[in-house]
Amino acid sequence: MIVRPLQHWFPRLFSWHGAVLSKIMFRLSLNLMMSIFAVICFQWYETLGIRLTTAPFSLLGVAIAIFLGFRNSASYARFVEARTLWGSLLIAQRSLLRQAKGALRNDPLEVSRFCTLLMAFSWSLKHQLRATDDSEDIQRLVPEPYRAQVLASPFRANRLLLCLGCWLADRREEGAISDLLYNAMDSNLNEMAHILGGCERISSTPIPFAYSLILHRTVYLFCTLLPFALVADLHAMTPLVSVFISYTFLSLESLAEELEEPFGIAANDLPLNALCTATERLLKEMDDRLPLPAMPKPDARFNLV
Amino acid sequence: MIVRPLQHWFPRLFSWHGAVLSKIMFRLSLNLMMSIFAVICFQWYETLGIRLTTAPFSLLGVAIAIFLGFRNSASYARFVEARTLWGSLLIAQRSLLRQAKGALRNDPLEVSRFCTLLMAFSWSLKHQLRATDDSEDIQRLVPEPYRAQVLASPFRANRLLLCLGCWLADRREEGAISDLLYNAMDSNLNEMAHILGGCERISSTPIPFAYSLILHRTVYLFCTLLPFALVADLHAMTPLVSVFISYTFLSLESLAEELEEPFGIAANDLPLNALCTATERLLKEMDDRLPLPAMPKPDARFNLV
Amino acid sequence: MIVRPLQHWFPRLFSWHGAVLSKIMFRLSLNLMMSIFAVICFQWYETLGIRLTTAPFSLLGVAIAIFLGFRNSASYARFVEARTLWGSLLIAQRSLLRQAKGALRNDPLEVSRFCTLLMAFSWSLKHQLRATDDSEDIQRLVPEPYRAQVLASPFRANRLLLCLGCWLADRREEGAISDLLYNAMDSNLNEMAHILGGCERISSTPIPFAYSLILHRTVYLFCTLLPFALVADLHAMTPLVSVFISYTFLSLESLAEELEEPFGIAANDLPLNALCTATERLLKEMDDRLPLPAMPKPDARFNLV
Amino acid sequence: MIVRPLQHWFPRLFSWHGAVLSKIMFRLSLNLMMSIFAVICFQWYETLGIRLTTAPFSLLGVAIAIFLGFRNSASYARFVEARTLWGSLLIAQRSLLRQAKGALRNDPLEVSRFCTLLMAFSWSLKHQLRATDDSEDIQRLVPEPYRAQVLASPFRANRLLLCLGCWLADRREEGAISDLLYNAMDSNLNEMAHILGGCERISSTPIPFAYSLILHRTVYLFCTLLPFALVADLHAMTPLVSVFISYTFLSLESLAEELEEPFGIAANDLPLNALCTATERLLKEMDDRLPLPAMPKPDARFNLV
Amino acid sequence: MIVRPLQHWFPRLFSWHGAVLSKIMFRLSLNLMMSIFAVICFQWYETLGIRLTTAPFSLLGVAIAIFLGFRNSASYARFVEARTLWGSLLIAQRSLLRQAKGALRNDPLEVSRFCTLLMAFSWSLKHQLRATDDSEDIQRLVPEPYRAQVLASPFRANRLLLCLGCWLADRREEGAISDLLYNAMDSNLNEMAHILGGCERISSTPIPFAYSLILHRTVYLFCTLLPFALVADLHAMTPLVSVFISYTFLSLESLAEELEEPFGIAANDLPLNALCTATERLLKEMDDRLPLPAMPKPDARFNLV
Repeated sequence: MIVRPLQHWFPRLFSWHGAVLSKIMFRLSLNLMMSIFAVICFQWYETLGIRLTTAPFSLLGVAIAIFLGFRNSASYARFVEARTLWGSLLIAQRSLLRQAKGALRNDPLEVSRFCTLLMAFSWSLKHQLRATDDSEDIQRLVPEPYRAQVLASPFRANRLLLCLGCWLADRREEGAISDLLYNAMDSNLNEMAHILGGCERISSTPIPFAYSLILHRTVYLFCTLLPFALVADLHAMTPLVSVFISYTFLSLESLAEELEEPFGIAANDLPLNALCTATERLLKEMDDRLPLPAMPKPDARFNLV
Repeated sequence: MIVRPLQHWFPRLFSWHGAVLSKIMFRLSLNLMMSIFAVICFQWYETLGIRLTTAPFSLLGVAIAIFLGFRNSASYARFVEARTLWGSLLIAQRSLLRQAKGALRNDPLEVSRFCTLLMAFSWSLKHQLRATDDSEDIQRLVPEPYRAQVLASPFRANRLLLCLGCWLADRREEGAISDLLYNAMDSNLNEMAHILGGCERISSTPIPFAYSLILHRTVYLFCTLLPFALVADLHAMTPLVSVFISYTFLSLESLAEELEEPFGIAANDLPLNALCTATERLLKEMDDRLPLPAMPKPDARFNLV
Repeated sequence: MIVRPLQHWFPRLFSWHGAVLSKIMFRLSLNLMMSIFAVICFQWYETLGIRLTTAPFSLLGVAIAIFLGFRNSASYARFVEARTLWGSLLIAQRSLLRQAKGALRNDPLEVSRFCTLLMAFSWSLKHQLRATDDSEDIQRLVPEPYRAQVLASPFRANRLLLCLGCWLADRREEGAISDLLYNAMDSNLNEMAHILGGCERISSTPIPFAYSLILHRTVYLFCTLLPFALVADLHAMTPLVSVFISYTFLSLESLAEELEEPFGIAANDLPLNALCTATERLLKEMDDRLPLPAMPKPDARFNLV
Repeated sequence: MIVRPLQHWFPRLFSWHGAVLSKIMFRLSLNLMMSIFAVICFQWYETLGIRLTTAPFSLLGVAIAIFLGFRNSASYARFVEARTLWGSLLIAQRSLLRQAKGALRNDPLEVSRFCTLLMAFSWSLKHQLRATDDSEDIQRLVPEPYRAQVLASPFRANRLLLCLGCWLADRREEGAISDLLYNAMDSNLNEMAHILGGCERISSTPIPFAYSLILHRTVYLFCTLLPFALVADLHAMTPLVSVFISYTFLSLESLAEELEEPFGIAANDLPLNALCTATERLLKEMDDRLPLPAMPKPDARFNLV
Repeated sequence: MIVRPLQHWFPRLFSWHGAVLSKIMFRLSLNLMMSIFAVICFQWYETLGIRLTTAPFSLLGVAIAIFLGFRNSASYARFVEARTLWGSLLIAQRSLLRQAKGALRNDPLEVSRFCTLLMAFSWSLKHQLRATDDSEDIQRLVPEPYRAQVLASPFRANRLLLCLGCWLADRREEGAISDLLYNAMDSNLNEMAHILGGCERISSTPIPFAYSLILHRTVYLFCTLLPFALVADLHAMTPLVSVFISYTFLSLESLAEELEEPFGIAANDLPLNALCTATERLLKEMDDRLPLPAMPKPDARFNLV
């Protein structure tokens, strides 16, 4: 995710850090060359009776804009849902820790173990969603006797949830937690199970592939043919207008594709690393374990991952 | 569902595996022939005073695009709801198994029976939604004494839910499950009843048929008349532009129709087989019953069913 | 609701069973006559200096399409909400019956009485929403001592809910149902109260009348003036294009109006009769009361009511 | 709200009762005069080199239609939410009364007092939302000892909620209501608190004022300039088309403004009086207190307030 | 937020208090100068063969309007969610105070302490969202022994939630609050945790920066080039139409940007100060602590902050 720079107004028009831009740069250059080619060949192909006019391209452009608007909404909805799930995760973790602290006032050690399991869940979920290896974070955070079974499982975040359930059941058996409180905390664990399931769903089910395919194809073909339609009206101004229109369509198509999978590490994806560190900071502060880990800093392009 | 191939950028423009494309291929060929016919006859029918111009088709095309955008949203919403229901099913099943394991620590046999009933529910729901025969999966998974009554019922998924309720009531009568936990697990069964009802609703109530009818008609008639409107402006370029515009409209109309019934076996429908196998893998792993069944592999066209 | 015929592709273009079509047939004939009139008078009124061009009608047509798209969304949302409420009703009824069966294992007679009250609620709600007389169904289904007070009440579905509450309170007083289960079942009754209230709301509050009024007016005036704007460009082709554009706008406006009140008996409304019979079948099967009533069959036009 | 007249089809085109129409009548007359002025001056201002063409107005008109579509959605969403809140209020009141009747079978007097407090809440909320004086209704409905403190409070609906809570706490202290039922009823009171809060939110937070301002300005300026753009193409037909296009935009803008504040007494606002009376009828019927008050009748323009 | 002035109709067209307007004033002046420049140079650059026509700008303008409509929806959804969260906060606070008053009838002092903690939470959340210093409000409202730990914490609103949980646990240990009521109140605290988390999410996760960037760029470039496209058709009228179209696009883009971050102090942001004072008034009235603090008054430009 890009952290908004201070210089806000003019600079934006000329800022080059948008990852989206670098992706479509090659396409825009192609379009520019096409436009120049169209301008040069204009005299020649008119004599051949080959004609393209703006009118059908207006119709097509507006139709594509409408469908692209739909695809943008769908992609953005996935992004927002993913962010909301991670927000709810933090809420559930805070509530669980508050409840544990309230119940086990005389056993801060067990509360700390519970707190580390909660933090480990965030990191493990992050690694699962990004298909990276979470062994290091598991080693760092998960205490025995849970560590071994978590490392042995192919579904580690889910196994951590089982461990949290075990910890809770053990506390109830010891009599440290009443039945009513057990139920209240179990329902927060259920909430975490919903979040895990929701993230897995977003991650494993993309927007139907045919949508991307159809829109990708039509947008690209549209931009390729556009200069030939514009040249009859615009002559030498064709490259300017053609690249401008192409930029609008290509960049939004490209952004929609990026937002569609919000758990990646592209510039506009969710900064899961930062979210996990923020979770660790908040939970440690509630557990009064100082000093807090530092927040990750955005890189030179204002990106967080 | 199509598993996204690695080759991502250029190949997409030329990939032919979209099931949507094969469906509309015939229509596009028709449109191509119409266009050629229009180009050939252009001289002739102009002398007859027959004229079609682009302007009214622009208006019509944009209007159809707007209505098609609405239909796409409605179809996609059904697809997303269906996927979310199946996601929630997995969450409810995991939570139920976690609760059962926590309560019956000394009776792994009963937990395994419960686990198989849960898995059978997924398979049975799949068969009900696709109107296929689930007897084999019932035979494989459902233990006696439940098997007989499930096979005898016309509404098997619902009957399996009754069986799960029975199992729960039996455990409570034995004293293995407390009243509070019984309530918590019963509310997860209620959740499964909601999922069953939701899937049945999506499956039995299509988008009002008149929508499909009206849009299908207008899109097809629009594409058929289009070449005759374009030919006055575009002459020899008519086939190219006409097929391109038709492709955009026909493919999105066709895709909307496919997504509208997300439980089918078309390329963009939900891969229910894969979801059921994934459920079986996850539940067996939680129950420590190794080895896990293998995930189904996408076919040569990257499809899962 | 129209049951989708087997012949799916070509036939649809020529199928005449859409109720929407029959409704707008008169309007389309008017439009056809207007178009022919425009073509005939074209020579004459041009000499009078009266001119209408396509451009302002394009603007107007697109604007109307956008507003019509909004109205379609609003109407369709009401249809979907209505269908979801009826789906939730079936879910609540099934859950209540499952809970009753689990609790009263030794008293199948009382369970059957409860089951009939549940079925009566569906039928009574249907009659209330369609403003038909439900006395026959009440007589058939509601057992004494409830029958008299239900027949005496002006709000029968609500009164049936009171009776279900009474039945539940009686069972608790007898000690057949524990307090916890009573609460769980009472929350399902609350769910039924929500469904009743939701259906009443949809039925009593249409989309603000001015929306229908404004769109109805503009769509009709637009279609009436359209031939006169098209004739300058299209000459003899005016009737074809004008009727085509009018069909698109009129049919969607007409469908939106039909979906807006989903509890009617028009072709695209909810098949409440079929839903009630399906409910009766499902509940009777759960109660093992065979034979099940037959599902209603769609009529010659594939309609269910 | 306008009660839909029986004469449904043709009459609608000519019905004049839309309050929206009367509001924009003045504007439409202005537009008509502008159009006539444009037609008359056309010869003159062309010689001055002043030209306006349709093309930029098409672009602007479509853009405004898109933004107006968004504003319509936002306003309508507020209307629907407001209606849903009032629907939920009735549901909560019915459930509370059913629960009270079930619990206090031997104390119909207290149930009646509770019932009147519930009715008073509806009326008081109505008066608060419309900023009218509710003293008369409070005097009529609220029994002592609650009446004095309600009349003394600046936030009467909220105070009535406190009184309902007091009544409940008193019944529990007397032992008439068990702890579990108390909780169930308290959660229905919470639901009423949510409804009160939701209505206050809708009433106190309009759609950001700048939206209304910008759209109001652009729509009016657009309609004012429109005749001058159309006159070059349409000559004498300018007034007809200009007034028609203006009617479409102005009426929808005006309606959106009306729906934005659904608690007013305009023709398309919610009929809060009728809703309160309906509530009183339903609750009295459940309490068997006959005769029921009559439903308010729509006025000569089919309006309910 | 702007408080709607009494003068409603005509004045709006000429009112200058929209903060949005002042922001885009500079841009509009630029556009005006560009237009005049285009008019002056028109003769000259036509001879150079440089031509821009309206057609491609129509296509582009409509496409941008569609994407801008999407961005407006996304921004407005954030505004509405933020407002709903603050509305729910007030509801939860009122419910908690009602429950506390009902439970601790003989200990008004403790109820008052609880009431001040609730009020402090609102103020602290406001300061956190606006990144201002809340020490003064903490000093004024939070009683000892909570004040010290709140002031020491970097996450003060969250810490206040912990304190509210402590207060509740203390009351239960004293026996003043039963287990069931404790649970009901704890679930309202959970609701406050959700609100805190939701506000933090909105505040920390803007709409993906690339959306703002792309739309900002295209809107500005579009408005800059527009005069040169219009001048061929409109000659001397170019400045009028160009500034008008630019105003529509720039103002909506600017407003979307303002609404995107609803917790700021711009004219269209949420009036958090007023909301906090309203909360204080309502809670104090429920606690019968008179006189109530005065509501903040809108400033000369009808703004509340």
